[in-house]
Amino acid sequence: MTTPSDKALVPFVSVDQMMGLVHHLGIEETIRGLAAHIEEDFLRWESFDKTPRVASHSAVGVIELMPTSDGEMYGFKYVNGHPKNTREGLQTVTAFGLLADVYTGYPKLLTEMTLLTALRTAAMSGLAAKHLAPKNARVMAMIGNGAQAEFQSLAMKALVGLEEVRLYDIDAEATRKCARNLAGSGLRVVSCATAEEAIEGAQILTTCTADKQYATILSDNMVGSGVHVNAIGGDCPGKTELAPGILTRSTIFVEYPEQTRIEGEIQQLDPDHPVQEFWRVLSGEIPGRQGSAEVTLFDSVGFAIEDFSALRFVRNAIEGTPYYTPLDLLADPDEPRDLYGMLMRATPTPAA
Amino acid sequence: MTTPSDKALVPFVSVDQMMGLVHHLGIEETIRGLAAHIEEDFLRWESFDKTPRVASHSAVGVIELMPTSDGEMYGFKYVNGHPKNTREGLQTVTAFGLLADVYTGYPKLLTEMTLLTALRTAAMSGLAAKHLAPKNARVMAMIGNGAQAEFQSLAMKALVGLEEVRLYDIDAEATRKCARNLAGSGLRVVSCATAEEAIEGAQILTTCTADKQYATILSDNMVGSGVHVNAIGGDCPGKTELAPGILTRSTIFVEYPEQTRIEGEIQQLDPDHPVQEFWRVLSGEIPGRQGSAEVTLFDSVGFAIEDFSALRFVRNAIEGTPYYTPLDLLADPDEPRDLYGMLMRATPTPAA
Repeated sequence: MTTPSDKALVPFVSVDQMMGLVHHLGIEETIRGLAAHIEEDFLRWESFDKTPRVASHSAVGVIELMPTSDGEMYGFKYVNGHPKNTREGLQTVTAFGLLADVYTGYPKLLTEMTLLTALRTAAMSGLAAKHLAPKNARVMAMIGNGAQAEFQSLAMKALVGLEEVRLYDIDAEATRKCARNLAGSGLRVVSCATAEEAIEGAQILTTCTADKQYATILSDNMVGSGVHVNAIGGDCPGKTELAPGILTRSTIFVEYPEQTRIEGEIQQLDPDHPVQEFWRVLSGEIPGRQGSAEVTLFDSVGFAIEDFSALRFVRNAIEGTPYYTPLDLLADPDEPRDLYGMLMRATPTPAA
Repeated sequence: MTTPSDKALVPFVSVDQMMGLVHHLGIEETIRGLAAHIEEDFLRWESFDKTPRVASHSAVGVIELMPTSDGEMYGFKYVNGHPKNTREGLQTVTAFGLLADVYTGYPKLLTEMTLLTALRTAAMSGLAAKHLAPKNARVMAMIGNGAQAEFQSLAMKALVGLEEVRLYDIDAEATRKCARNLAGSGLRVVSCATAEEAIEGAQILTTCTADKQYATILSDNMVGSGVHVNAIGGDCPGKTELAPGILTRSTIFVEYPEQTRIEGEIQQLDPDHPVQEFWRVLSGEIPGRQGSAEVTLFDSVGFAIEDFSALRFVRNAIEGTPYYTPLDLLADPDEPRDLYGMLMRATPTPAA
């Protein structure tokens, strides 16, 4: 076999290696690292090329490519969404991503992104809550105890100082799974029988349910003054979780209005309803929370720049660790015009 | 480490494995296989989703994602174009591609595509020449002896029965490289000092030069009646190789008019100048070559469906061979909602 040059090898992070990396760093430190990279990128928001995602829809799901670039690096995520997959023992969402050097066009990182997306989504929520939740928020209601619930809880612990999480799901088995997983995390975990019980004493209300429909997970009277609502599950057209009355009396913060108006909770509102861009809070251009009675809402749908930040984080974090494998992805003839010569000189033995 | 389930493993074909596969099949058989897959897909042209490519431009190059789908499978190619790279010892173009199952959204193949693109481009030229070149075309002028020249020559041998290739390049070293590589291929190789010498007695004229500018590689008086012009190098805005006079007296065949009018030789013509879609020749809807005096022109720019066909070919060809590696790209928890549990249960040892 031929030995590819270093230039032609692309670091690859498998699912197993991603799990190894997270254990190596610690999950809360991973989330803090992700949040720091997101913050860095949000602070230079205007330098990003915000290409719309490219979606390929079918009757049963969607496959999307989400590219973005800051002019120096280029990143994209491949992600599918197939709600019917769980009934067939498959994941609803799988994802992988790539980071490349804009100057050469050469890929610099290929990585699994199913786990990474779960981690960056939680890091984004934590970063938003840090600026929008009431000071000294220590209790969160976690409504919807599926795949994202533990990550959300730990992000709030790592970034906001959360002490107690109050779990509720229409499926008690999901709550048991989540409580079991969070035992020993340092959080006080309270399993609740109703959503009303879950919100008792909570300063942060996080909704993250899976129903793909206009649902009302939080009704208007459940949201008291001064709380921060972290709405994760309203993330595609036709899927929302909050009663419209909550939206109209909240200060609404979003990632990218053009996308959130189509996919987020605010698809329920008029297209010109005022919303705040969260990156402007980070840059100091607009205030975050303005008073103890204000209801703040982070209407999170997930944006390509967050994936870009996550890819940057991984590229930095794996350096000097064993948590990647060099992948022979790029042809690299000694003489660029002699691709055929490279092929002919290769001895016909498969790589190990 | 955890052992991912079969469902979560994606077959990966490295550059080394691609070279092994081509040696295993034989290069001409590989090209014939690619042409057969392209023909199959062109015959169901209307079933393809022809999404435009998504380009990210910078001052020094471009990075593109080229997705397409036939409703059952979804494919995309990542490809960069950085002409200045060769001066820095890097490839102008590198590429990789992915094939996924539309029904589940799960990736089914990840492969290098730098070599594969060179092979499919040649297979496409050969397939077009089979239907457009004069019967019993045995001699080709190959003008531009860079990375694509040997592949073009062998595709014409494999698909049209070419016996002689006449090489010319402004850089004599490129011609020497090409002649050396084609020695022993079964083709009679004639190295020429001028383009005029190269076209002597040739029924097929292939142009494939690298200058990114409006160049005139073939002037009007060099193209006699009855020949087939296979124009490869005019493949992006601002880059053409043929004198306009050749175009106006040729019957012009293209892959996808919307794309070719921007990128191909016909960017020199009025936007409503008549062109023929090559897939309609394959389907029998329109004729190919209509007489011995006709000048036919295949204005090739490379289209996403050809990459899709190439991905299908590789997926079929690797089955039962050692020319791929299963890649742990997709997170696959036993219980879809328990992504966090999968992460926590992973013992922190990196994969080999």
